[in-house]
Amino acid sequence: MRAEIENLCEKLHYRFKNPELLEDALSHRSFRGNKNNERLEYLGDAVLNFVIAAALFRQNIKAREGELSRLRANLVRGETLTDLAKEFDLGKYLRLGAGELKTGGAQRKSILADGMEAVVGAIYLDGGFQACEACILSWYAHRLENVETIPDLKDPKTRLQEYLQAKKLALPVYTILALEGPAHQQSFKVECQLHGLPNKAIGIGSSRRRAEQKAAEKILAELESTYKI
Amino acid sequence: MRAEIENLCEKLHYRFKNPELLEDALSHRSFRGNKNNERLEYLGDAVLNFVIAAALFRQNIKAREGELSRLRANLVRGETLTDLAKEFDLGKYLRLGAGELKTGGAQRKSILADGMEAVVGAIYLDGGFQACEACILSWYAHRLENVETIPDLKDPKTRLQEYLQAKKLALPVYTILALEGPAHQQSFKVECQLHGLPNKAIGIGSSRRRAEQKAAEKILAELESTYKI
Repeated sequence: MRAEIENLCEKLHYRFKNPELLEDALSHRSFRGNKNNERLEYLGDAVLNFVIAAALFRQNIKAREGELSRLRANLVRGETLTDLAKEFDLGKYLRLGAGELKTGGAQRKSILADGMEAVVGAIYLDGGFQACEACILSWYAHRLENVETIPDLKDPKTRLQEYLQAKKLALPVYTILALEGPAHQQSFKVECQLHGLPNKAIGIGSSRRRAEQKAAEKILAELESTYKI
Repeated sequence: MRAEIENLCEKLHYRFKNPELLEDALSHRSFRGNKNNERLEYLGDAVLNFVIAAALFRQNIKAREGELSRLRANLVRGETLTDLAKEFDLGKYLRLGAGELKTGGAQRKSILADGMEAVVGAIYLDGGFQACEACILSWYAHRLENVETIPDLKDPKTRLQEYLQAKKLALPVYTILALEGPAHQQSFKVECQLHGLPNKAIGIGSSRRRAEQKAAEKILAELESTYKI
């Protein structure tokens, strides 16, 4: 294995039994058509999604499914993966075709993010699930610790409630105005009303909860434009 | 644990150390607001996605990323999960509120699919990753074995190539007609031409491969309408 790849392994805190897997993970399709990193990217994406989903589940014992999903989406999206790739200086190790190299492909966000996923896939194949999980959790330790600082990830009802509580105002009242359609495709029409404030909003959705969230979202948007909250 | 839940465990081929987890997984939000199955559903979705993604990766050693993604999407979509839930007669064990019960909620597809994911999440929490993976692979054994019978899952270029080969015709020729835009957002314009046939199509995409796939898709659509392939 080339010395510079050893260097990358140190940064990743992972030593490959089969270094060829890492070389595959670093090989963009512009470098070699066959055996490029796209299959590993597919695999890495799935491992990463699961490891982060499970970590958030364990860590946020009170968060609802919607909030967990939003947090996860934030932590595995391209932008976060690009940041992670930059922390490891991954662009330096990627193998790109001459054309991509010339046009700055090694710093292109999508190539970095895809490469990062492929590295995850390679570690999973090389060391198994537990070793790969341990790597991901160490890379994400800081982000997972600070997860509550990610803005606007709470669902609209929660945000509305927290806003009103902070202002010592009464909680919103949600009322079902109508329930339409056959049993398997019902549509709920819900009104959200704030006590002592003129704001009202109506949300429509396939469940009571979805309709309430939509109504809360509308009220939040109104409050934001009226009171610059 | 009620006898009927023991019955379900037998069908699932999994014995819970903590049967409360299974009861949570079976509890729809209409049955009890807090501690319903939605957090487990979120977790189960992530485990299932990963286990199926990894199984397809191992099993289809030549399939490209696009094909693997399509196969996975097919195997974890709501319809497949509903079928799985029906195999276990899951509707019988679900705990729904009176309203949902009355309107046939226990047979509603989305409730069955969500319940199935929640059961996966409960097994993961109860027995850990390996036990959960073993369950999923046993439930999916038949589907994974017959994965190549899932129609139309191959990417357009592969389908076009296989069609032409079956007809003993020459392979299509892809030509880049234009390459526009700055390095980080290039746009490829590719023509796909068939030897000895008048059909031609142009595809535009952010990579050569994407543009080729789009051109192949158009030609396939033409062949389908002209020759009823």
